[in-house]
Amino acid sequence: MANDFKEHIASVNNFPNEGIVFRDITPILQDGKLFREATHELAEYAKNKGADVIVGPEARGFIVGCPVATELGIGFVPARKPHKLPRDVERASYDLEYGSTSLEMHKDALKPGQKVVICDDLLATAGTLTACKQLIENLGAELVGAAFYIELPDLHGREKLPDLDVFSLVQYHGA
Amino acid sequence: MANDFKEHIASVNNFPNEGIVFRDITPILQDGKLFREATHELAEYAKNKGADVIVGPEARGFIVGCPVATELGIGFVPARKPHKLPRDVERASYDLEYGSTSLEMHKDALKPGQKVVICDDLLATAGTLTACKQLIENLGAELVGAAFYIELPDLHGREKLPDLDVFSLVQYHGA
Repeated sequence: MANDFKEHIASVNNFPNEGIVFRDITPILQDGKLFREATHELAEYAKNKGADVIVGPEARGFIVGCPVATELGIGFVPARKPHKLPRDVERASYDLEYGSTSLEMHKDALKPGQKVVICDDLLATAGTLTACKQLIENLGAELVGAAFYIELPDLHGREKLPDLDVFSLVQYHGA
Repeated sequence: MANDFKEHIASVNNFPNEGIVFRDITPILQDGKLFREATHELAEYAKNKGADVIVGPEARGFIVGCPVATELGIGFVPARKPHKLPRDVERASYDLEYGSTSLEMHKDALKPGQKVVICDDLLATAGTLTACKQLIENLGAELVGAAFYIELPDLHGREKLPDLDVFSLVQYHGA
């Protein structure tokens, strides 16, 4: 099945910056059967981790995480870019593979003790993941796992968070 | 059931600008049962319209539309803000309730003749909806309906697109 997913990821050279190979998941999303299969794989992972809630970072984390939450019948919490959420927020800053930004979460988005799985399209250097972890823990919840469509193991994202369990559908080496 | 949804929408005064009442759907998303129910209502609508594919505009349209697509087992196409999609795009500009921007869709995102339902959180002045319609039709597909969590009827969004069938879970008057 992993081969099916990889065949539907478009690799685009020099986007958004020179030297970056962008891994575009939109062909998976366009294929209803594949999008549902990818969702189901991540949902099985999150269920096995005992997740009470899914956190997804803006914007592709919404695409990946929301269907996982509705398949399991559990809540979804968006981690958004600054000034998008209207009520009181926690904020965490982080570096991207290219550039830097911040993420925010409503202060009442998670309850203490809730078990959280983060869902996103791509694990690269783990900047987004680290910021999400900080937000989740600042709200008193417990991060129990993270699930991705794509992982770039050569960027060593997992090693930044050695105690965190990580799942990915496909891996690209040499990124 | 409509009352349940409304009780879980937070109304925030003067966000993002003075005089705007922001309708915040994040409390619905946090409640796994309600998020699934809202998704199911929109999915039933899209199924009845014969949708082959769901289009959702960035970013809350991803949250609303992706679970609808996976529930039905049909494709999802994101309409994204400029410079986010890596391959050849169509672009349409539009005015928001506050400000203006553009949306883009990959040129190969839709096939001629596909039936499309747009999903988003909020129908206000129909700026986003009109831009999505233009993109969908430029790609040769057919827009058969649009489904929202929230509609602000006093902003007359429906009247901008009188031939389009529109569905909404809850309505706020006096917006």
